[in-house]
Amino acid sequence: MDKLIESVEKEVIGWRRHFHQNPELSFEETETSQFIYDTLLSLGNMTVSRPTKTSVVARLIGAKPGKVIAFRADIDALPIQEENDLSYKSKNDGVMHACGHDGHAAVLLGAAKIMSHFKEEMSGEVRFIFQHAEEIPPGGAYEMVKAGVMEGVDEVYAIHIMALAPIGKIDVASGIASSGNDAFKIKIQGKGGHSSMPNEAIDPIVIGSEIVSNLQHIVSRQINPYERVVVSVTKFHAGDTYNIIPDIVELEGSVRTFKPEIRKEIPVLMERIIKGICEAHGATYKFDYNYGYDMIKNNEDVTKFVEETIINTFGADKLRITEPMMASEDFSAFANEAPGCFVIVGAKNEEKGIIYPHHHPRFNIDENSLNIALEYFVSIASGRVLL
Amino acid sequence: MDKLIESVEKEVIGWRRHFHQNPELSFEETETSQFIYDTLLSLGNMTVSRPTKTSVVARLIGAKPGKVIAFRADIDALPIQEENDLSYKSKNDGVMHACGHDGHAAVLLGAAKIMSHFKEEMSGEVRFIFQHAEEIPPGGAYEMVKAGVMEGVDEVYAIHIMALAPIGKIDVASGIASSGNDAFKIKIQGKGGHSSMPNEAIDPIVIGSEIVSNLQHIVSRQINPYERVVVSVTKFHAGDTYNIIPDIVELEGSVRTFKPEIRKEIPVLMERIIKGICEAHGATYKFDYNYGYDMIKNNEDVTKFVEETIINTFGADKLRITEPMMASEDFSAFANEAPGCFVIVGAKNEEKGIIYPHHHPRFNIDENSLNIALEYFVSIASGRVLL
Amino acid sequence: MDKLIESVEKEVIGWRRHFHQNPELSFEETETSQFIYDTLLSLGNMTVSRPTKTSVVARLIGAKPGKVIAFRADIDALPIQEENDLSYKSKNDGVMHACGHDGHAAVLLGAAKIMSHFKEEMSGEVRFIFQHAEEIPPGGAYEMVKAGVMEGVDEVYAIHIMALAPIGKIDVASGIASSGNDAFKIKIQGKGGHSSMPNEAIDPIVIGSEIVSNLQHIVSRQINPYERVVVSVTKFHAGDTYNIIPDIVELEGSVRTFKPEIRKEIPVLMERIIKGICEAHGATYKFDYNYGYDMIKNNEDVTKFVEETIINTFGADKLRITEPMMASEDFSAFANEAPGCFVIVGAKNEEKGIIYPHHHPRFNIDENSLNIALEYFVSIASGRVLL
Amino acid sequence: MDKLIESVEKEVIGWRRHFHQNPELSFEETETSQFIYDTLLSLGNMTVSRPTKTSVVARLIGAKPGKVIAFRADIDALPIQEENDLSYKSKNDGVMHACGHDGHAAVLLGAAKIMSHFKEEMSGEVRFIFQHAEEIPPGGAYEMVKAGVMEGVDEVYAIHIMALAPIGKIDVASGIASSGNDAFKIKIQGKGGHSSMPNEAIDPIVIGSEIVSNLQHIVSRQINPYERVVVSVTKFHAGDTYNIIPDIVELEGSVRTFKPEIRKEIPVLMERIIKGICEAHGATYKFDYNYGYDMIKNNEDVTKFVEETIINTFGADKLRITEPMMASEDFSAFANEAPGCFVIVGAKNEEKGIIYPHHHPRFNIDENSLNIALEYFVSIASGRVLL
Repeated sequence: MDKLIESVEKEVIGWRRHFHQNPELSFEETETSQFIYDTLLSLGNMTVSRPTKTSVVARLIGAKPGKVIAFRADIDALPIQEENDLSYKSKNDGVMHACGHDGHAAVLLGAAKIMSHFKEEMSGEVRFIFQHAEEIPPGGAYEMVKAGVMEGVDEVYAIHIMALAPIGKIDVASGIASSGNDAFKIKIQGKGGHSSMPNEAIDPIVIGSEIVSNLQHIVSRQINPYERVVVSVTKFHAGDTYNIIPDIVELEGSVRTFKPEIRKEIPVLMERIIKGICEAHGATYKFDYNYGYDMIKNNEDVTKFVEETIINTFGADKLRITEPMMASEDFSAFANEAPGCFVIVGAKNEEKGIIYPHHHPRFNIDENSLNIALEYFVSIASGRVLL
Repeated sequence: MDKLIESVEKEVIGWRRHFHQNPELSFEETETSQFIYDTLLSLGNMTVSRPTKTSVVARLIGAKPGKVIAFRADIDALPIQEENDLSYKSKNDGVMHACGHDGHAAVLLGAAKIMSHFKEEMSGEVRFIFQHAEEIPPGGAYEMVKAGVMEGVDEVYAIHIMALAPIGKIDVASGIASSGNDAFKIKIQGKGGHSSMPNEAIDPIVIGSEIVSNLQHIVSRQINPYERVVVSVTKFHAGDTYNIIPDIVELEGSVRTFKPEIRKEIPVLMERIIKGICEAHGATYKFDYNYGYDMIKNNEDVTKFVEETIINTFGADKLRITEPMMASEDFSAFANEAPGCFVIVGAKNEEKGIIYPHHHPRFNIDENSLNIALEYFVSIASGRVLL
Repeated sequence: MDKLIESVEKEVIGWRRHFHQNPELSFEETETSQFIYDTLLSLGNMTVSRPTKTSVVARLIGAKPGKVIAFRADIDALPIQEENDLSYKSKNDGVMHACGHDGHAAVLLGAAKIMSHFKEEMSGEVRFIFQHAEEIPPGGAYEMVKAGVMEGVDEVYAIHIMALAPIGKIDVASGIASSGNDAFKIKIQGKGGHSSMPNEAIDPIVIGSEIVSNLQHIVSRQINPYERVVVSVTKFHAGDTYNIIPDIVELEGSVRTFKPEIRKEIPVLMERIIKGICEAHGATYKFDYNYGYDMIKNNEDVTKFVEETIINTFGADKLRITEPMMASEDFSAFANEAPGCFVIVGAKNEEKGIIYPHHHPRFNIDENSLNIALEYFVSIASGRVLL
Repeated sequence: MDKLIESVEKEVIGWRRHFHQNPELSFEETETSQFIYDTLLSLGNMTVSRPTKTSVVARLIGAKPGKVIAFRADIDALPIQEENDLSYKSKNDGVMHACGHDGHAAVLLGAAKIMSHFKEEMSGEVRFIFQHAEEIPPGGAYEMVKAGVMEGVDEVYAIHIMALAPIGKIDVASGIASSGNDAFKIKIQGKGGHSSMPNEAIDPIVIGSEIVSNLQHIVSRQINPYERVVVSVTKFHAGDTYNIIPDIVELEGSVRTFKPEIRKEIPVLMERIIKGICEAHGATYKFDYNYGYDMIKNNEDVTKFVEETIINTFGADKLRITEPMMASEDFSAFANEAPGCFVIVGAKNEEKGIIYPHHHPRFNIDENSLNIALEYFVSIASGRVLL
């Protein structure tokens, strides 16, 4: 199998560069998904389908019965203008694979190609899920689950190639693997007026300021200090001119949590503060709290299998047990349907100047991470269906 | 009459020094009131009475019918240790006439003595009210009014000798002459706990701090900028040790206003803020707002007579039309019963080093202010009963 | 003279309606100023000039020597869409005389016409100043003074027709007659970042909020409660999206004061707070404080003459001694050059539905105020040059 | 050995009850230490010494060379009035073993007795450290280390019997095992004055309130959300009466951290805020930050040995890998000198009503925890010196 992997590795790099050069935004992955569809079809022994307009699923069903395991790769790009000087630089103005999804898609194609050679020996099924629109909540995962792609799946796996984790390492978090990421909007309704007569107005700017200040108390006072929670007000818009007190203030922001029960508590605490401060000064408010991607829950048994597989495949020094990542990911929608595990594949390489964070115009990955990811997928699959 | 005044002036200074040397606290003016009582009785033609334990009233009833006008002097001292180096320095440790009431009492005794010579010529009555306990709300004035001392009075007058107003001047405010002075207590009930687990507590110190901060908005945002209002939190007590979050916070403070309608609005605005902030953080509260002395309302007609009297007696350059004083005074209780006027008699003299504010251990007055005050009282009385 | 006034009154109303129907914005008063210029010229015995592009000055020089007194009217309109249903409603879309300047200009034209009949009897000079651009700081007054229109002037007068003061009354403030009106901008430079990692950012929104909150202390704690001061933050702009902490916050607002020394103190106190709060959280700032129109200082002697003139002309019950107005006015630029007096002519009439404030789309005035204003100007002029 | 342990177990319970009935405060453990000294001496083959007035150390030196391992028990009680109804209830009014140190001392005496039977078989040394004054920083551990008790020690161990952890379990934290616990005092120097003239004062209460509010931002904004930090202001004292703005505010509080580099950062961030806010309002300050007990660092190798020993002795289901405890402990002073490990021995038993937290007047422990702790100490010692 090693030779097979070796030969596919080159193709994976080619595919990744193809995707990189031709990035498409979320929900617009027309050519990307067509390319994936055609490539999978060309393997000859897969059932390939399009559960949504720009996503693809391929099922490789073994000769013998067994577990159904699924791998997921996300395939969309970002509205960023690439600033790298690469032969395969993005051709699409203002669109860039700045989050590694080009690598995810290429690696999963490679894994499909390799596994397709073992259909006869296989017990069970390997399902390859190429998901659109990870970058924009509510996300493509939700749509694919609704379209039935997780039916019958026993276990589900995904990777994230990470330019801030060192090349050679695979990071695994026990339990919760990523944050719950929610967004909120607050509209404070005061009463406008002339700046020289504040008493005839209800000044929403001082009220909004007190709300921002008092919201800090949630993290500093009201949540268990052992828990990780972030409440950020990121937008504060009010007023147009120097001498008119405006009617309203609009605030926006986001909340990160790592436990469902705390996630539910935060909007309750927030609204208590917003309501109290508004009432303290005679204003009213509207509060919208929008739940975003769920936390990814790494299943205990599946994660144990993942850790053992990494140690056996790459050596114990390659495995890092880490904290959950602060980012959020809609792989959670799949992992809510079947026991799953999400791991981080390191792709940082300071010697090669690969040091820029995700969503940066100069983001890049060490392509050796593709080989590692490929081997990881194949090892996981082999461990479950090639018994 | 000028010679008469001149001779009495010396006595007034003697009396003032006697009072200064023998100060007594509010409600404890036993010897002071006895001295006043005896002196008034010795004049021979007054009806002298003691409406309360330590106050004195003398009525000088003229031969002919006419208006009843009343003069009021307050007679109590303060719990302050005198630091002046005077031959007549306070003999009573920790008690001092640091607010000029020694002068008020002496001047009114002098006015009584002078007017007693004119009983036969007089139309109407002059009533001399020596009031105890001005310094401690709810104040002695309230008790004296209740005891009936204002019955039948047509007009009521008082002075305040003021070490921060220049000697030679008499200050008159039109309309409101002093502030309404109220006190408040706020008790915030949180929930104590160990400092390392704030989430299991309701931290009343952060809540109290936000209340202090938000109370500032009343003056800065919610009251007409043309109005004078002060809301001061002067006490903040919470906690005993470095590692225990306390259960409660106790705040105290005071409010100054100059209009009855604003005075009523302030506690409503305060409670709105206290309630809102407490609810924002899950605490409860107790709010006590205690109305103190009323604003003194200088009657328009009486004040016009006062202004003319000052101009005629001392010259137009001696009269100053001023803003109301920020201090409060229970003369308001008398002026609520009959049209009245309250004036400030200057007693500051930088050349003599008389520059310390009231309630200061080195407070003193230029004794020439006693002559001016005496002449003022006699002129007012003459203008009303010696027609 | 009464018949003369009566006949001119009708013209004044006509002129006012003409100006109302043809409003022009600040610095664009081309037709308005031409109309004024032509009308003044037609009087035959004035020296008429255009000190700036859209302003007009007329000098009526008496046969005998005497005082030079000046009257000023402002002539510009506002960018407001009129919503009144009037025969002489604004013809210019989005432009409206919503501040009474149409009346000011018409009345002063009328006064010029009346006084032009008395050139031979006059001792001294009456100067008629028709000022452009009062509505936009730094204002037209400043330009006209620079152009020399106040040279040789002994006294300067102006009125403001006020829809919120009752028709029939003329309001005079002693001393300061209007506020100083300043504008400020604050730019807080934090450091942007992802909302999930506030520790790698310097969050300017919480810093801006604390600045807004702490600025309240200037009025509530740091300025003498006897003084009138307003500090309003009216604009707070930061951030574009829910998950990115922005780099900067931009605040704007305005300050009203009534004493030069306090006006100077406010930006010092503001910057102390801004600097302290920024340093407390590691941010930097830029603070621009722009002085707007000065306070109008009503000269003591001139104001006494004004009060006497009003009493003699209209009766004592028509004069009201009032607090300074919270608004500001660039008549201050003229009153800084010569002793002056600025008065308010009431124009509110609830029975006629004339109740809307200045700068309101339904603003209007009781046109009887024009007669009163005309008589006022003529009486003042007569008192000074027709001896 | 099992029979030996069984027989000693009864003695341990007796000793624990003796200590419980005769509690002594920190630095006053005279009888407690004498009892320990006598008991250790009676074992016959120990070198027993008193490094400080109320602490005891016993050295059991094996016949063969080997590692020196130390066990530490703390022996002081708390100033709490016991409210339990026990036959061995505290005899000393207002003093109580409400933190389990009675059990720690008894268990370590038992371990000494058992190990003393194996002196001849032993390779190396077992050192028994009975430490005074754990409850009052800077703590007795520091004094004992200074007195040399850790000289030559290769590994050091301690337990804490915990009434909030379930009986039967032993909790081990990897790496940091307890918080760093620091205390601070802030004195804000404003300028007192009369409550009616805040502008002549510098009001320290509003400044203190803003400091409390702004300190919340350290945890909510300035520290990595992955880190556990608590900053609590627990005391706020200012002012005596309702109408005097005080000169100063005194704040106290505590800080909990789990990493040395963050521990160093907190006082820097705190002072930046205190300084900024004071300067914003013209006040000055004094800031004292007092480092308390260090974090306990569980050595990686030693902890691995501890985990294996627990699994082998009690079964894998008895071991719990836990987060560090929020409390702090001066065992850190010993663990700073030699590789060490600190574990929690569960003692909660809801069926027996043993549910009260440490430092509670009804605190108690399930005495079965003593047996577990005894076996733990003996197993650790055996694993190191009985090879």
